[in-house]
Amino acid sequence: MAESRITPRAQDFAAWYQDVVLQGDMAEPAEIVKGCMVIKPNGYAVWEALQRAFDDRFKATGHQNVYFPLLIPQSFLKKEAEHVAGFAPELAVVTIAGGKELEEPYVIRPTSETIVGHFFARWIQSYRDLPLLLNQWANVVRWELRTRMFLRTTEFLWQEGHTAHATHQEAREEVLRILAIYAEVAEDLMAMPVIKGVKTDAEKFAGALQSFSIEAMMQNGLALQAGTSHDLGQNFGRAFDVKFQTNEGKLDYVWQTSWGVSTRLIGGLIMTHSDDKGLVLPPKVAPVPVVLVPIYRKEEERSSVMEVAQKIGKDLNAKLDIREGQTPGAKFFHWERRGVPIVIELGPRDVASGSVVLKRRDTGAKEVIPQTELRAKIDTTLATMQTDLHQAARQRLKQNCVTADSLAQVEEILRNVTAEKGGGKFVFAHIKDDPTCDARLKEFKATVRCIPLVDEHDGPGKCIITGEPVDRRAVIAKSY
Amino acid sequence: MAESRITPRAQDFAAWYQDVVLQGDMAEPAEIVKGCMVIKPNGYAVWEALQRAFDDRFKATGHQNVYFPLLIPQSFLKKEAEHVAGFAPELAVVTIAGGKELEEPYVIRPTSETIVGHFFARWIQSYRDLPLLLNQWANVVRWELRTRMFLRTTEFLWQEGHTAHATHQEAREEVLRILAIYAEVAEDLMAMPVIKGVKTDAEKFAGALQSFSIEAMMQNGLALQAGTSHDLGQNFGRAFDVKFQTNEGKLDYVWQTSWGVSTRLIGGLIMTHSDDKGLVLPPKVAPVPVVLVPIYRKEEERSSVMEVAQKIGKDLNAKLDIREGQTPGAKFFHWERRGVPIVIELGPRDVASGSVVLKRRDTGAKEVIPQTELRAKIDTTLATMQTDLHQAARQRLKQNCVTADSLAQVEEILRNVTAEKGGGKFVFAHIKDDPTCDARLKEFKATVRCIPLVDEHDGPGKCIITGEPVDRRAVIAKSY
Repeated sequence: MAESRITPRAQDFAAWYQDVVLQGDMAEPAEIVKGCMVIKPNGYAVWEALQRAFDDRFKATGHQNVYFPLLIPQSFLKKEAEHVAGFAPELAVVTIAGGKELEEPYVIRPTSETIVGHFFARWIQSYRDLPLLLNQWANVVRWELRTRMFLRTTEFLWQEGHTAHATHQEAREEVLRILAIYAEVAEDLMAMPVIKGVKTDAEKFAGALQSFSIEAMMQNGLALQAGTSHDLGQNFGRAFDVKFQTNEGKLDYVWQTSWGVSTRLIGGLIMTHSDDKGLVLPPKVAPVPVVLVPIYRKEEERSSVMEVAQKIGKDLNAKLDIREGQTPGAKFFHWERRGVPIVIELGPRDVASGSVVLKRRDTGAKEVIPQTELRAKIDTTLATMQTDLHQAARQRLKQNCVTADSLAQVEEILRNVTAEKGGGKFVFAHIKDDPTCDARLKEFKATVRCIPLVDEHDGPGKCIITGEPVDRRAVIAKSY
Repeated sequence: MAESRITPRAQDFAAWYQDVVLQGDMAEPAEIVKGCMVIKPNGYAVWEALQRAFDDRFKATGHQNVYFPLLIPQSFLKKEAEHVAGFAPELAVVTIAGGKELEEPYVIRPTSETIVGHFFARWIQSYRDLPLLLNQWANVVRWELRTRMFLRTTEFLWQEGHTAHATHQEAREEVLRILAIYAEVAEDLMAMPVIKGVKTDAEKFAGALQSFSIEAMMQNGLALQAGTSHDLGQNFGRAFDVKFQTNEGKLDYVWQTSWGVSTRLIGGLIMTHSDDKGLVLPPKVAPVPVVLVPIYRKEEERSSVMEVAQKIGKDLNAKLDIREGQTPGAKFFHWERRGVPIVIELGPRDVASGSVVLKRRDTGAKEVIPQTELRAKIDTTLATMQTDLHQAARQRLKQNCVTADSLAQVEEILRNVTAEKGGGKFVFAHIKDDPTCDARLKEFKATVRCIPLVDEHDGPGKCIITGEPVDRRAVIAKSY
């Protein structure tokens, strides 16, 4: 694919995003399959880095991976009333298989609570079988009308945790434990600051008692729900008859949780750090942290440059770009667009002086470094870049958080915000957790993103819509 | 689930297999989704070990992971005539999505050659874009009539490699490179001996020029096709118009390969090593290589035993089984059925004498070991067990390979062989690679498994059916 211009963020943020994704070799739309994409090598490698980070943490907290079927009998979804109401409009339905019309159609899982509920009922008899802490890495399908690569696609990859507990308190602890893991990976690996909070009743997962989320701010000020953790209460336990004998010999329904992060995170990563030159990846999730480009014009320079390049490449475990028929300039451009944190240039003069030129992707700064100090310099540069990206994103989040004390004020701030034009803010305001209040915000396409777990503002106040007393300010924003 | 009796292999091999899978916590049938299973924690952990082994090798040989959509427009499959003929009967079809009947139905991928072909045509223009070496880890669906857990399920997990090359020779090298990787993981990690060979025309992949496979022998003597690598020639290149400019400036279709291994491997692993007591796992793929069971009867013994147990568990990174309300006997039984290679017993007398009792899963041999020598003993025992299991399987394969020089002889040997009764053999016979010959074997439900790449027999001979000259003996067997 020919590499072409990247639309500047200031001109059209949505077009910029699409350009960065395509030219960063992250993904491309699969128009022939409605709303789907192909995840390309650079994008999939970032997904693998995130998978490892989450999977290690899930396992360290006692979770085991399993795999449930892709197809779910249609009748299963109907067993939990709110659940089917939430997902019915988005289902893909298999009606023919093996050349025959099916008696009961299957839906492709939009999420697996129902089929998990069915098996939990088989597996759980006693409090001794609890807690049951499972996770699966899988694909799901939700038929979406408007799609954007990574952010909202008909099919996406994710992990879905499903756990069962003997008490509500244990389930709540699990929900918050996972939320903390999500926030940790977002902040520490992705350098993407997030706000942890609880969703309003109107915005919670279909079938949950309560949903928690991490919310991140993109460079256009829009919110991205980057991970959710649900307290399912006993809703699915009742729907699927998952009863257990308590240690006092009574029968009770299990308390369940479910939680997930998806390839959507990659969209968040891109929109948090990238710039008008293309993709920027924090070192900790960059598939290739360092690339070395040897430079020579004449054939007689080739062997001495290549010899040193090979040695440095091997010592530092850096990727060597020795593609023929590409100018050094084209190579720099190539790796810049792919978000490689550090590119090292090595030409005949560098060989002669025992140095290299090191270029940092985020700042664009170039520095001449003695080859003997390169290892140490790379380590500190990667560490600094990781911190700087995090810091810059934190700073941006802080600058774009505002408070408002009336609905008119909230509307004034958010009314003209779009994904294309940007200008979004996180507006902290007192608002009652009541679907009629959520509905009022929808009139100008804003939503309550979450009610933060930690109130960093001024405590209680009066609802900007009903005037009723409210505990703390919620985050109101336009969102993906 | 209550643990119950395992049917002995000699009584009913198929029932034994089912018992081992269930009681080893490997998988269980999902009757509510036709022909599907739930892969349970122990089974999924084995899959993760295999994934890591293959993925490392694919990456080391220059392959990159990607992800293509689950759904494929139905019309795509029809573009390659043999391909659609092969897969049409097994397709699951999505006809309704987002509440509406679809204009063109989608099929759930049974394999991805067609959608990959579509994207290859977009991505490949010049010889500079080649070779393109991609792989994806994914689920696929094939509507099967008779299913067995892991061995043949409607949905299964696999990896599918898809590569494009400038020349047929390069593509052939790729096909054989991958076949070698498959054989290496089977032999070295799974301790499962395999025969590498080429499939007959009748048995090759639908749409391939030629298919290669690794064939393993289960304990009942049945063959299991454990991995396949296909030379697709230019068939899909032509079907999807994947043309490239050669380095001589001409236009040509790319030469493609595809290759896959699946969760079926886990079935092969189980049927290669397990015994009448349940699952046996080779140490290199065992999710938990060592379990330590502390034993104490009286409360006053508890603290001294637990103290030593905790220390050993930590030093050796062994799993400590400290579940309350379970007798030591029940714990040994539990881990035995789950195929844990080494179980260590630690009681008050062991604490007093500074020793432990080490039990090996495959032989059942118990040995008293000084605690100071435990680390070294575990390492050598795991290594020996890995070798012994491989050796035993090799021996069994060798003993059950026979030659035959007439069709009557082949039929005599294989006629009464079933998955339940066993008694299977690999019959080496000269047989022409011609669909009419394959059809003749089908009369007694045998197939040509492969024509071995390396002839370890007597070279050319006459076809047992047509009398025509044939290069070397093929492997004929009953199979899964």
